[in-house]
Amino acid sequence: MMVAPVTAPILIRGTGLLGTSIGLGLRAAHYTVLLSDPSPTAEAIAQDIGAGIRLGDAGEDLPGLVIVAAPPEAVAVEVANALVSYPEAVVVDIASVKIGILARLLEMAADAETALTRTDLSRYVGTHPMAGREKSGPVAARGELFTSMPWVVCPAVDLSTGEQLSAETAVADAVQLARTLGASVHRMDPSTHDDSVALISHLPQVAASLVASRLQDAPADALALSGNGLRDVTRIAASDPNLWVQILSANAQPVVEILYGLREDIQRLITTLEAPTAPGGQADIAQLIAEGNAGVARVPGKHGAPPQSFAVVTVIVDDKPGQIAAVLNDIAEIGVNVEDLRMEHSAGHQVGMVEVSVLPGKREELAQALTNIGWKVVLS
Amino acid sequence: MMVAPVTAPILIRGTGLLGTSIGLGLRAAHYTVLLSDPSPTAEAIAQDIGAGIRLGDAGEDLPGLVIVAAPPEAVAVEVANALVSYPEAVVVDIASVKIGILARLLEMAADAETALTRTDLSRYVGTHPMAGREKSGPVAARGELFTSMPWVVCPAVDLSTGEQLSAETAVADAVQLARTLGASVHRMDPSTHDDSVALISHLPQVAASLVASRLQDAPADALALSGNGLRDVTRIAASDPNLWVQILSANAQPVVEILYGLREDIQRLITTLEAPTAPGGQADIAQLIAEGNAGVARVPGKHGAPPQSFAVVTVIVDDKPGQIAAVLNDIAEIGVNVEDLRMEHSAGHQVGMVEVSVLPGKREELAQALTNIGWKVVLS
Repeated sequence: MMVAPVTAPILIRGTGLLGTSIGLGLRAAHYTVLLSDPSPTAEAIAQDIGAGIRLGDAGEDLPGLVIVAAPPEAVAVEVANALVSYPEAVVVDIASVKIGILARLLEMAADAETALTRTDLSRYVGTHPMAGREKSGPVAARGELFTSMPWVVCPAVDLSTGEQLSAETAVADAVQLARTLGASVHRMDPSTHDDSVALISHLPQVAASLVASRLQDAPADALALSGNGLRDVTRIAASDPNLWVQILSANAQPVVEILYGLREDIQRLITTLEAPTAPGGQADIAQLIAEGNAGVARVPGKHGAPPQSFAVVTVIVDDKPGQIAAVLNDIAEIGVNVEDLRMEHSAGHQVGMVEVSVLPGKREELAQALTNIGWKVVLS
Repeated sequence: MMVAPVTAPILIRGTGLLGTSIGLGLRAAHYTVLLSDPSPTAEAIAQDIGAGIRLGDAGEDLPGLVIVAAPPEAVAVEVANALVSYPEAVVVDIASVKIGILARLLEMAADAETALTRTDLSRYVGTHPMAGREKSGPVAARGELFTSMPWVVCPAVDLSTGEQLSAETAVADAVQLARTLGASVHRMDPSTHDDSVALISHLPQVAASLVASRLQDAPADALALSGNGLRDVTRIAASDPNLWVQILSANAQPVVEILYGLREDIQRLITTLEAPTAPGGQADIAQLIAEGNAGVARVPGKHGAPPQSFAVVTVIVDDKPGQIAAVLNDIAEIGVNVEDLRMEHSAGHQVGMVEVSVLPGKREELAQALTNIGWKVVLS
């Protein structure tokens, strides 16, 4: 899968979390990486942790690929500058919303007063690595950030005619970048991308934040009853406000379209619950939950496989070092692959439950084998 | 913790998932358990899997404790019947909403035409074991279902005066039941209980179902980009529609009060996103996410401890049997306790990442020790 490094260096503009992580990953794959950032401190940290060498300290070789890893608001101008400054280089950006940037680039290319031309856009490819962390900045970077994660590649298109502007050789460079970093490539047009992330990334973020915000003033006694349901639904509510302001603003239209539907569903549920015994009320509630059943069944499982119901074998363990390892060690000796793992948390007890997901055909075998060697096993 | 079994048998009315699970747990603790259910089949299955003996097959001993595990709609009448039929027994129910049942019992007790008296209510205690499964029916039952889970105990009160009606001896029996089954007891008045579960259980269920229902008609290309964020937010959307119709109907008022706030927040966000560049728009979005940060920080962690930030050490493993076990086995030998475990899933790759949460003070030590023995480790 790894492709041999090209000879021309790769320039990363913007050494925050993502830019620095890309640098670390490319360095590990033996590419020459140049770094530049408006903040000399961020640039120095990125160099110190091994993400590449500062552009100012580098030799005369011009970059063959420029990766614009600037904050979303600054991306379009940075891409245009790179296309003009390095007339032989392919330029990719990694911002999480794509149409706005492309529209701005097309505007600049159509404007005779700017140096950018429409021909330059043949060397531009929009991309979006779907990886991130709660933390930010170069210190939090890691070269493996993109391992196994989707990386969307969106060739530039004319937004009126749909004609592709990116050259296929430039698209191939973007694809090679993503693959080198261990990501899985999804090619998509920019508008489909923005609609998709509104649904599968921005909507869940909004929902998690909305639910979590209701907990701000909740009594501690109520929160003490929290289970995994609440924990799962609110986990991503811990995200960075500054980043999400930019993402939601940049993708406002697709997000708001989805929120209209959400608002309608909530209003319907409110009307039903205001008179829960009215005719049809119970059917309305059942329909909401059933529609949720149908939707969640479509979320793909591990490794992009079609949604699959794994069978769960629950093992009860003491809450002390080595217990979970011991269970999994025994499972490995039994020879069954663990598809997923969860721990059940709850209040006031010093035992835990480890839920081990396995292929349905392996369930009985595993449960029997674990029981035989003394584990307390519950089939789910 | 385990209390010696009382001599009088315990009668469980309703042998669905919860009733049968209680029977299995009580049998494991050597109690005599009697079973009854309107469905002879459910009753027979519960007996066959060892949850107790059918009431019809039992001897003359009257129950000292009756557990009403009927569907929520039927609970009040079943409790009243049990209080009248067994004038010496304590009667508890296990329904997930409490005020409606209590109000109905008070009505019946005040009605001279029914056999139930207000004095009978001294033997009634409302309870709510916060455990459940996606599956239902006696076949899915397990005696360990309540291990480590919260079990709310709500002594009956006069809803006008607040005067407690349940005798403390009856409350003690309910507490003993919960503890015998390994649960952690939370004593609470019925109204606080209903408000609490609206917030920490019913709201997340509604949010998960609403988000998941938007995925019903989503393009497969969009769903292929799904990450752990979407999976976490929608996981509980797989719940049973019939059960949730009853729960949401029974707790309509507290749920709808929360939904008013949610509707207002969504409307505010829609207004902002309709004109994302208007003055104050960005601050509105930042505030929503920041309020979510504040709320999620209040959700307690494992074992009911105060919310605690664990440090995460990520280990990259091959996706084959034994890898996760090998990691955890090595962690156990290093002597560090695993506080939480997650697997990162994504599309198209045959490696996985295991995120191991440990106490912050243990992070560096663990990462160093794992690296020394050859694991690919990433600090988070």
